Amino acid sequence: MLKEVLLGVLTGAVALTIGILLGHFAIDKGSSVPEWVRDASRDVDESIIEKFLAELDTNQLKENLRELTKVPHMATTSGDEATVDFMLKRWQDPNTGLDSAWREDYKVYLSFPNKTITWFQNNSNEKLFHLREKVYKPDQEDPEVVQPFAAYSPAGNVKGKLVYANQGKMSDYELLNRTLDLRGTIAITRYGGEGRSKKAINAAKFGIVGVLVYTEPYDMNDGLVSESETYPHSWYLPPSGVERGSYNTDFGDLLTPYLAAKDDTYRIPKEDITGIPPIPAQPIGFEDAEGLICELDGDDAPDEWQGSLNCIYKLGGPGFKATSTFSNSNVHLDIYNTERLEYSANVMGIIRGSVEPDRYVIYGNHRDSWVHGAIDPSSGTAVMLEITRVLGKMVKEGKWRPRRSIIFGSWGAEEFGLIGSAEYTEEYFSKLSERTVAYINVDISVFANATLRASASPAAQSVIFTASKQVNAPGTTTTVYENWKQYSNRTSPNYGIIPNVGFLTGAGSDYAAFMHYLGITSMDISYYYDRSKTRARIYPAYHTAYDTFDYASTYIDPGFTSHQAVARTAGNVLLRLADSLLLPFNCSDYTESLEQYLSQAVTAFEEKLAAKGISMESLKKAVQIFRDTATKLDRVIRDSDLAKETPLKARQINDQLMLLDRAFLDPLAFPEQYGFRHVIWASRSSSVPTFPGLADAVEKAESTGLKEDWDQAHKHISIVTQAIAGAAHTLDDVI
Amino acid sequence: MLKEVLLGVLTGAVALTIGILLGHFAIDKGSSVPEWVRDASRDVDESIIEKFLAELDTNQLKENLRELTKVPHMATTSGDEATVDFMLKRWQDPNTGLDSAWREDYKVYLSFPNKTITWFQNNSNEKLFHLREKVYKPDQEDPEVVQPFAAYSPAGNVKGKLVYANQGKMSDYELLNRTLDLRGTIAITRYGGEGRSKKAINAAKFGIVGVLVYTEPYDMNDGLVSESETYPHSWYLPPSGVERGSYNTDFGDLLTPYLAAKDDTYRIPKEDITGIPPIPAQPIGFEDAEGLICELDGDDAPDEWQGSLNCIYKLGGPGFKATSTFSNSNVHLDIYNTERLEYSANVMGIIRGSVEPDRYVIYGNHRDSWVHGAIDPSSGTAVMLEITRVLGKMVKEGKWRPRRSIIFGSWGAEEFGLIGSAEYTEEYFSKLSERTVAYINVDISVFANATLRASASPAAQSVIFTASKQVNAPGTTTTVYENWKQYSNRTSPNYGIIPNVGFLTGAGSDYAAFMHYLGITSMDISYYYDRSKTRARIYPAYHTAYDTFDYASTYIDPGFTSHQAVARTAGNVLLRLADSLLLPFNCSDYTESLEQYLSQAVTAFEEKLAAKGISMESLKKAVQIFRDTATKLDRVIRDSDLAKETPLKARQINDQLMLLDRAFLDPLAFPEQYGFRHVIWASRSSSVPTFPGLADAVEKAESTGLKEDWDQAHKHISIVTQAIAGAAHTLDDVI
Repeated sequence: MLKEVLLGVLTGAVALTIGILLGHFAIDKGSSVPEWVRDASRDVDESIIEKFLAELDTNQLKENLRELTKVPHMATTSGDEATVDFMLKRWQDPNTGLDSAWREDYKVYLSFPNKTITWFQNNSNEKLFHLREKVYKPDQEDPEVVQPFAAYSPAGNVKGKLVYANQGKMSDYELLNRTLDLRGTIAITRYGGEGRSKKAINAAKFGIVGVLVYTEPYDMNDGLVSESETYPHSWYLPPSGVERGSYNTDFGDLLTPYLAAKDDTYRIPKEDITGIPPIPAQPIGFEDAEGLICELDGDDAPDEWQGSLNCIYKLGGPGFKATSTFSNSNVHLDIYNTERLEYSANVMGIIRGSVEPDRYVIYGNHRDSWVHGAIDPSSGTAVMLEITRVLGKMVKEGKWRPRRSIIFGSWGAEEFGLIGSAEYTEEYFSKLSERTVAYINVDISVFANATLRASASPAAQSVIFTASKQVNAPGTTTTVYENWKQYSNRTSPNYGIIPNVGFLTGAGSDYAAFMHYLGITSMDISYYYDRSKTRARIYPAYHTAYDTFDYASTYIDPGFTSHQAVARTAGNVLLRLADSLLLPFNCSDYTESLEQYLSQAVTAFEEKLAAKGISMESLKKAVQIFRDTATKLDRVIRDSDLAKETPLKARQINDQLMLLDRAFLDPLAFPEQYGFRHVIWASRSSSVPTFPGLADAVEKAESTGLKEDWDQAHKHISIVTQAIAGAAHTLDDVI
Repeated sequence: MLKEVLLGVLTGAVALTIGILLGHFAIDKGSSVPEWVRDASRDVDESIIEKFLAELDTNQLKENLRELTKVPHMATTSGDEATVDFMLKRWQDPNTGLDSAWREDYKVYLSFPNKTITWFQNNSNEKLFHLREKVYKPDQEDPEVVQPFAAYSPAGNVKGKLVYANQGKMSDYELLNRTLDLRGTIAITRYGGEGRSKKAINAAKFGIVGVLVYTEPYDMNDGLVSESETYPHSWYLPPSGVERGSYNTDFGDLLTPYLAAKDDTYRIPKEDITGIPPIPAQPIGFEDAEGLICELDGDDAPDEWQGSLNCIYKLGGPGFKATSTFSNSNVHLDIYNTERLEYSANVMGIIRGSVEPDRYVIYGNHRDSWVHGAIDPSSGTAVMLEITRVLGKMVKEGKWRPRRSIIFGSWGAEEFGLIGSAEYTEEYFSKLSERTVAYINVDISVFANATLRASASPAAQSVIFTASKQVNAPGTTTTVYENWKQYSNRTSPNYGIIPNVGFLTGAGSDYAAFMHYLGITSMDISYYYDRSKTRARIYPAYHTAYDTFDYASTYIDPGFTSHQAVARTAGNVLLRLADSLLLPFNCSDYTESLEQYLSQAVTAFEEKLAAKGISMESLKKAVQIFRDTATKLDRVIRDSDLAKETPLKARQINDQLMLLDRAFLDPLAFPEQYGFRHVIWASRSSSVPTFPGLADAVEKAESTGLKEDWDQAHKHISIVTQAIAGAAHTLDDVI
C-alpha cells in the first residue's frame, strides 16, 4: 500500500504542480490586464518607419507634380477648383486615402488684375510694357496665365518722372531724397532687401506716386541676361519673366483680422486695411526694366545699387537723359486691379489617432499658385500627396494607425497672404491651441537639389536631426544630415558642429499662423541650393509663367530624388511626432537658443539700457531659470521608464513639451503686428538677431531719444522676462 | 489495482484542479497588472467626503476667526504680516498642515491716508468731519485702525459749493446739470448704484472738483439712524461708521498691467493710470452726511433720491440754504493720500495630487482687510483654514491624497483691487491656464445666516448642487440645497425649479482674474441674507471699524453654523473637483445659459440690428452648434465606463471639460477693459443681461447713431459667434 500511497501522493503532487502552472500561465486573467495597458505604452515602431521610407516613390512624386501643374491654379480660379477635386479624390481613395477628407471654404478678400497697362510715354512716342511673358513652351500660352500684377496695389492712373530707388528700403529713398525732389516721381525698384509692399509704403512717405518693381538679373540670374542663357536653356529667368506677388505686410484675410472669414463675419472698411501699398505698384521683367533704367539721367547710383543690365545705373534726373528716345517723358502707370470677395477652399484630411486621438500633428502646404506653380507650391503638394498615399495605404490595410491624430491641410489663397491657413487657425483657435503637438510645413519642397534646409522652433531641432540621419542624401553616399552639415552648420555649445536650423521669425509661409498666432511648435522643411554656386534670391522662375512641370523636371529635380528626400525626412518627422510615446522635443535646445538671443541682447543693448537706468538682470535670471527647469525636466525624462508607468505620466510630460511654445505667447506684446504673439520668434525689423520686441524698441528709442520710447524698451524686457520665466514654470515640477 | 488507479487518478484530478485554482487565483501575476491601473480609475470616495464633512468644526471656525481678527490687518501693515505668519504656521503644521506652504511677494502700488481732513467752512465757522469712527468696543481704539479714506483718490485741496448727486451715476449728474451749473462744485453722493471710483470719474466730466460719498441709512440700515438702534445694539451701522474702499475700476497692480509686479518690472507712469478718480474723493459716515445734506438749499431732490436722514433731501443751491449756520459756505476737501510701492504677500499652500498632479484645483481667499475685517475677509479665511486643517490631517495620517493637486491661495491686497490674485495669475499665466481645473473663491463666507449664495460658471452649477444636497442647512431640518431653493430660485428649461446660481460677470472678488483673465471655471460661495427681511446693500459693518469678531459672533453667525455650512459646501465641491475620475462639470448647463443670453439678445436687439442690415443668424447657429456638441459629449460620457477604459479616455474628456471656459477667451474683445477676456462673462454696462460686448456696443450705437458704432455691434456679434462656435468645436469629437 505504501507504494500506492506514494504513487498517489506523487501523482497528486505532479498534478498539483501542473495545475498550478496551467492555472498561472495558461489561463488568461481575462479583464485583469486590459488591452489598453499595452497600447498606451507602445512607442514608435522603427520597422514601420523603414517601411514608410522605402515606399515613398520618385515616380509617384513626378506624376503627382505633373497632375497638379496641368493648368494654372491661382486661388479661387477654375484651375484651383480642379486641384481641390484632385486632392479630395486622392484623400478619399478607398485604398490609399485617409480616414476622411473634406473642404472648408472662407469668403476672402482677393485682388485681381484687369488690363493693367504700364507704359512710358512722351507725346509722340509710346512704348507699352509687356503684359504677358514670352512663350517658350505651351504652358505660357494657357489663357489662364494671370497677367503680372501686384496684388492689393490700388488701381490708379499716375504719371511722373522716373527715379531708380534700388530695393525701396527707407534708407534707399532717404539717399535719393538728399539730392532729388521725389514728390510726384515714379520709382523703379528691384526685388529683394525689403518686403514687396513696403517698397511702395516707404515710397509714398517721400511723395512718390507710383512704384515699379523688377527682377534684377544680378540678384536672380547670377548676372545672365540673354535669352540664350535663360530658360528654356537653363534654370535662369527669361528677360520677360515677371515675379507676381502679394503686396501686403500682414497675413490672413485683410477684412477679417482675428475672425474667420465666414459669410456673416464683420468686415472692416477697406480704408482701414493696413500694410498694402497706398500708391499704385507694378512688377515688370528685366527686359522692360532695362529700357527704363538704362535711359535714366542723373548721377551714377552707388556701387551697391548697380546691377547686370547693360549700362551704368543712374538715379534719374528725375527722368530720362536728354539723349534718350524718351527724353522728357513721364512714366505712366495705369493700374486696373480690382478686389473681390471670393470663396477659397482648404482641403482637410485626417487619420484618427488610436491612443491619443485628442493630440494632433498637423502637416500642411498651400495648394494655390500664381501660375502653374510647379515648384511653388506643387513640389510640396506632390510630397504631401505621396506621404498620404503611403500612410493611407498602411491604414487601409490595417497595418498601422498612429498613436496621435494626424491632420493634413491643403491651404487655399496662401499667395495672397497665407489666407487659408490663417482663417483655419482663427476658426479653430481653441481646439488647435489645446491639442496640437506640432505643425510641419512643406511649401516649396525643392528649391534646388543640394541640401536639406529647415527652420523650426528649437524644440523640434532634435527630431529633424533624428529623421535626417535616417535618409540618404540624393547624389551622395551620405545621409541627409551629414550632407546638410556640410552645407550649413553652426557650433552648438551642447553638441559641437551641427546643421544649422533656422528660426521661424518671419511669415514666409503657412507656418506663420501656427507658430506666431497659436504658439504651436512648427517647422518648415525643403531641399535647397548650394549657396556657394549661385546668388539667386530664390529659384529664378519663382512666381512667373516659367514655374512649370517642364522647368521643375528639367532643371530643379530631374530624378525627383530631392522630392523623395524631403518626403522621407518630413514624413519621418511626422511619424515620430505621431507615434512616439514621449514627444521627440528637446527643451534644453530651447535653452540654447534663448541663451544665444540673450547674449546678443546683452552685447548690443546692456550698456545703452544701463545708461537709461534699465537693468537686464531680470531677463538674465529668467533665462537661467529656464535652463535649470529644462535640465530638471530632461532628468525626469531620462530617469523615467515611461513604458512601465501610468500613461498619465507620459501624458503629463508630453503636455509640458507640447505647450512649451504656447507659453511664450503674449497677445498684447505686439499690438501693431497682426498675428504675432510669440514673444521670442515674432518678426523683427532691427538687424540685431535677438528678442524682437526688445530689439525693435531699443532701435526706436535710440533713433528718437524719447523717454517714452526707452520706457517701451523697459516694458519689452519685462514682457520677454515674464514670458521666459512663465515658460520655465511650465517645465518645472508640475507640483 | 483498479481502485488504486482510480484513487490515483482522482487524487491527481483533485490536485490538478486545486493547482489550477491556486495558480490562477493565489499567485499574483506580478508586474502584469500594474498598481496604477487601479489608481488611475479610482473615483471620488463618498466615505471620505462624509468623514471630511463631519470633521469641520464650529469651534475651530470660531477660534480661527478670533485669531485672524485680533488686530487690524490692512494690506502690508504689521497686522497683515502677522496673518501671513499665522497662515504659514497653520499650513506648515506637521500634523494638520499641507504638503508645503510658502509666501510670494509682489511690489505693488498702494494708497494710504495721511491726516486727511474734510470739513466745511465759512470764515468764522469751521466744522471738522469725524476722522475716526466712534469707540464702542476696544477694537475701535486700536491705533492701527486706518482713518476712513478713498484709496487712490488723488491728494488735493479743493473747495466749492455743495450739491447732492444721489448715487453719482452719469444720469444723476445729468439731471442736476439741467438746472445747476456744476462747475467748481463739490458733490455729495451715496454709496451704491455705481462703482466708487466712477462716482468721481463721472463727476469730473461736469466740472465738479471733489466728491464725498456717504452710507445712506435707507440703503444700509433699513432706515435706522439712532445710536440706540445700531451696533453694538444691532447689526446696523452706527452713525459715525464709514465705508472705506478702493476707488479704482480696474483690478491688479495699477502700475504693471498684464505683468507681475516684481522689483524690476516696467511700471507705467502714474499719469497713465486709468480708472481712478481724477478729483479728490472722501467717504464719510451718515452722521456727517446729515449735517451737510439737511442744510442744502435748492429744489427738492426726486423721490428716488430721498433717504432716511431727518430732512427732505435738496439738490443744493448749489450750497447751503440761507437759514443754515453754514449759509454761503464752501465745502472744503483737503486730502493727503499718498501712494507707495509696498511688498504684498500671497501665502500659497499645496497638496500634491496622486494620479494627476498636473491638474490643479485652486481654492482661495484674500487675507487683507480694511480694519479687523471679521466678515470681510476673515470669515472666509477661517473657513479656508478649517478646510485645510481637516484635509491636512487626512494627508498627514496617510488616509487620503487627492487625485489632482490642490492649491490654496491666501491673497494679499485684495481690498486695493484684487492685487495679489491678479499678480499671481500674471506671473503663472501659462502654467495655470494649462492645468487649472477650477477656482473656488470663498471671500466673505457669511454675510448672514439665511441661505447659500453661489455665483459660478454654468459648468460648475451641477457640482455645487451635488455638494449642497449633502449638507444640512443650519437652523433648519432641510439641506442647504433645499433651503437655498426656497430663498432664490429660477425655472430651468432642463430641470424645472432649481436654486439660482448667479453669473460671475463682475470683478467683486479674487475670482476675477481666474474667470475673466484666464478663463478658468470659477465659483464664489457664501451664506447670505433673507432678502425679504432687509434692504441692506451688504452687511452694515462692511469696510468699517465695526467689522470685528464681536460683531460677527454676536450678530452675523453666533454659533458659527453658517460658517460650517459654507465650509462643508465649498469643501465638498473642492473634494469632488479634486477626486472625481470624471470632472463634475456639465457642458449642457452651459448651453442653457448661452440660450438664455441669446434669447435676451434676440428680444432686445434683433430688430434694431436688422434695421442696420446686421444679422444675428450666425450667432443663433453657433449656439445651436454648441447645444448639439454638448449633447453629444454628454452622450459619450453617459455611454462610457471610464473606470474600465484607458485613463487617457477620461483625461481626454476631462480636458474638454476643463478647457471649456478657456475656449471663450478673446484677448482682443475688450481692449479697454483690463483683464476681461471671457467673451460671455465680461463685465457689462448695458442693463440687458446678455453677451456683454454686444450689449454695450448696441447701447453705444443707439446713443450715437454712428455707422462706425453699429459696425462695432456687428463686430461683437462676430466675436461672440466665433467664441461660441470655437467652444463648441472643443466639445465635438476630438477627431
